Order: sequence, then structure tokens, then C-alpha cells
Amino acid sequence: MAHAHFVADTHVDRLADGRYRGRATERWHVFGDAAPNGGYLLAMAARALADTAGQPDPVTVTAHYLRPVGAGTVEITTDVVKTGRRLTTVQASLVQDDQECLRVVGAFGDLDRFDGPDHQDRTPPPLPLRDHCLDLNAVGAALPDDAPLRPPAVAAQFDLLLTPPTVGWMTGQPAGRGEIAGWCRWAGGGPMDSFGLLVVADAFPPAVFGMGLPIGWVPTVELTVHLRQRPADGWLRARFTTDSVTRGLLEEDGEVWDADGNLVALSRQLALAARA
Amino acid sequence: MAHAHFVADTHVDRLADGRYRGRATERWHVFGDAAPNGGYLLAMAARALADTAGQPDPVTVTAHYLRPVGAGTVEITTDVVKTGRRLTTVQASLVQDDQECLRVVGAFGDLDRFDGPDHQDRTPPPLPLRDHCLDLNAVGAALPDDAPLRPPAVAAQFDLLLTPPTVGWMTGQPAGRGEIAGWCRWAGGGPMDSFGLLVVADAFPPAVFGMGLPIGWVPTVELTVHLRQRPADGWLRARFTTDSVTRGLLEEDGEVWDADGNLVALSRQLALAARA
Repeated sequence: MAHAHFVADTHVDRLADGRYRGRATERWHVFGDAAPNGGYLLAMAARALADTAGQPDPVTVTAHYLRPVGAGTVEITTDVVKTGRRLTTVQASLVQDDQECLRVVGAFGDLDRFDGPDHQDRTPPPLPLRDHCLDLNAVGAALPDDAPLRPPAVAAQFDLLLTPPTVGWMTGQPAGRGEIAGWCRWAGGGPMDSFGLLVVADAFPPAVFGMGLPIGWVPTVELTVHLRQRPADGWLRARFTTDSVTRGLLEEDGEVWDADGNLVALSRQLALAARA
Repeated sequence: MAHAHFVADTHVDRLADGRYRGRATERWHVFGDAAPNGGYLLAMAARALADTAGQPDPVTVTAHYLRPVGAGTVEITTDVVKTGRRLTTVQASLVQDDQECLRVVGAFGDLDRFDGPDHQDRTPPPLPLRDHCLDLNAVGAALPDDAPLRPPAVAAQFDLLLTPPTVGWMTGQPAGRGEIAGWCRWAGGGPMDSFGLLVVADAFPPAVFGMGLPIGWVPTVELTVHLRQRPADGWLRARFTTDSVTRGLLEEDGEVWDADGNLVALSRQLALAARA
């Protein structure tokens, strides 16, 4: 179901060369339920960009978040910056009500066609068995109606099973470090692809909440995702860390691994810490 | 001297609103001495962007490298994407001989005016005393004239004192992991600033050389640098790591610390591994 929502809610209609129209839905709204998740909007823009580039996968894609988007129609204009042998560089503007909300630049290619050396010194994040993790949506369902913080709409699109130490902040016991990790798939399962990974890269609660800093809106300034290969079916493992907050400027670095134990995505965003 | 070169060689003349002209020099050429260092070109574009934004610092800046640039005149065209309260988002195209070579998007602000929480869980890379490091340029000067690999022009713009284990590959003894770390300043010293940090973020030999993979040209597809604060005078400490190479796609993550022990920059690039 969530996967079908994803396919429908990131669909774009091609109106003309470099002109697309999509429709942002409320199913992907974030904390506060005021605006869609940044990864969701990036995935929609990436669908338009892949079409423009004539290449299936965002190999590296950077989004600058300029203004919040509301549920409703968005227009996406795209340009080819440079067509290369393996990578085509493209750019998009996502516009709503005549205001640009998202600027995206990326290099698109076919991840199945890359060849070259392999060397892996990372290991997938060590996670407890899924039965021993906290289901974010189950926790949310058990909260009283007047709870100040509840999982946002976007969380319900995923099965998110988080490691208990990294979500201690949900019960007022932050671990003291900026990390959140867990298992992830579309709610109820379903095939994951390159575009879905862009949402996964921004779908977990902010890692900075584990630090013990104020909990609140952590606006993304810029998000860059590198994809390495298309994910195998099954549960993803993901880990996000924030190690350095400087006068409110923070990074969040993510790793996403597929069920076959392959690194499928690296992400980094620059965000602004929540205000006390 | 190197600092004066940097100031002169990244200078841009403003020709009109959003139009600048600069001159790439051979002093910043990389391995093979065929084209300037990507960080140097980014610094030149960032000077034009800072002028356009009316903001002094690149807080986050992403460059896509499209074509090599030769020594000589370049034109930079810039646009304001969005003017914000603290950050202004801007975009640049760097063009030579009517071909776009570099596309840049970034958010510029005044790093001295940010306020918000601080939290630091990183520590500066542990480096040996400078006397115990290998001076890249001294090593290069001692090489025979027909050595296959020698430090490129850009190295001579810096005093680069590298930790011996991370440059074992220079003598055919790679450490087996993708890391390079050391001390860094302009050759002979001189003030470092936000634009200089963009060069530092791309000035060390590729970390991937430590893995034992083939040594050769490692083209950058995309480089993103986050600046956290302006650097204090004195020696910088920097560390670059590559942990995952997937069919030739690799990341290089960098941290740069100033002489006061402050994290001043985080960088990440997507690059292509050298071919055997």
C-alpha cells in the first residue's frame, strides 16, 4: 500500500520538454504535519530529472530547500547541463504557486552499467533483531491524544523499527549522542528502488534528537544523496549520525544497506538545529 | 607567497550583474598537470557567488565537474535562487571557450552571525608532531627526474605534512585503507579564509590511494563542502577517508580543523576510481 502510494504520489506528467507536473500529497508530511518530507519532494523531482536525462538512476543528487511546499500541484522545470558517456548532469526547479521551493542538481546514470573496482571497509550497522526494536508507528499509536510529539504522516509510509538506545529521547532519555538506526521498508513491504532510497535518506527522525538538544523542527538546508546500487528486495538497514553542531549548523550523515548486505546509499545533509 | 597567489588567482572581475571574469593559472594544476584542482575552481566560483549573494561565506556549496578547464580566462555567470534572512541560495556556471565546465549551487551567509547550540562529538585527527610527518613537496623534490608520480603544481601552494602511514602508497606500501591525514597551511604560511578552505578540501592526494587500488586520475563528479566557522590563523589539521568503492564509485569525506581546535569544514565528494 505504501509502495503504491509512493508510485502514485511521486508520479509526474510530462507537459513538454523540460516541463513536468506533479501533486504533493499529505501522506508524506513531517513533524508538525505542515509540509512534505524533503526526501519525498526530492524523489518527485528526481523522477522528472531521470526522464530528462534519459538515465534511470540518481547517482549523486543535491537539493536545496528554499520554501515549504503544501499539499497540491507542483511544477518541475528541468534542464540538461551536460550529457556525458556514463553520467548526464541535470538540474530542476520545483515550483508551487509561482515560487521556487526546491532547487536540485544531480548526475544521473545507470547503476547497473558501472564497472570498476570494489572495496568495502564499512560494515552494515549492527542492529538488534527486529523483534527487539521499537516500531515507531506502534509507539505513536500508543501515545495519548495530547502527546506533544507523535510520529508524522511520513512515518506511516514505512515500517521503521528503531534500535532502543537511539530513540531514548522519545521517552525523555536521550542517549547523549546524535545517532538513530534501525530497520526500514515500505509499510507492509513492497519493492524499493533508487527513488525510494531518496525518501529513506530523509525519513528517520533527526539523529540530533539523541544528543539531548531541544526537540523540534530541524529544517534541511541542503541534502545530497549518493546512490551506489539498486537495492535488493527486503528490509533495509540504515544509520544516521550527527557528530558536530556548530552554532546551530549540523550535518546528518546516513548509510543505507540492503537485505543482501550491500551499501546502497550514502547521504549527508546540512540542517539547522531546533531552537530551545 | 602562496597566499598572495591564491588571492590573485581566484580574483574575479565583475563585468555586469551576474557576470564575472577570472583567470585560471597553472599554479593549481593537479596530477598530470593538465587541469586545475577542483577546489581551486570552486573557490573562484565561490568568490563570484559571495559577491552575488552579498554574503561573505559559502555555508554549503556543491560543484559538479563537467569538463576540464585549461589555464586561461573563464567566465562565471551567477543567479540568485532565493534571498533568505540568514542564507542566500545562489548558482553559478563557470564557462571556458563557450563550454560549461563547472555548475555550482550553494547557500551563502555570514558564519560569524549564526547562533544556536554547539555540540562536538568529533575530535581533531590525532597527528604526529609536524617534524615526524612527511613533507609532500620535499618528497617530490627528492624524486628522480623520471619518477612516474610526482606532487602536482597545486601541492607546491601548500605546506602539506602527511602522516607516514597514510602515504605508504608513495613508496609502494599502501596501508590497505583509504585514509590520508596531515597538517596543512599555505606554503610559507599566511591567512586562511573560507575560500581557501574550499581548496584545502580538495588539495590532498586522494585517500583511495591508501587502499592499494591502482594509482591514477580520480576524477571528481561532485564536491560538497560545508563550512562551520572561519579558520583561525596557523596550521590546519585535515583528514580524508574513502571507505566504500562500489564498481568504481567512491566517496571521499574530509574534516578540516583549525589551529584553535575548531572544526571548520566538512567535505564529501563523489569520484571515480582510477582505472587499472
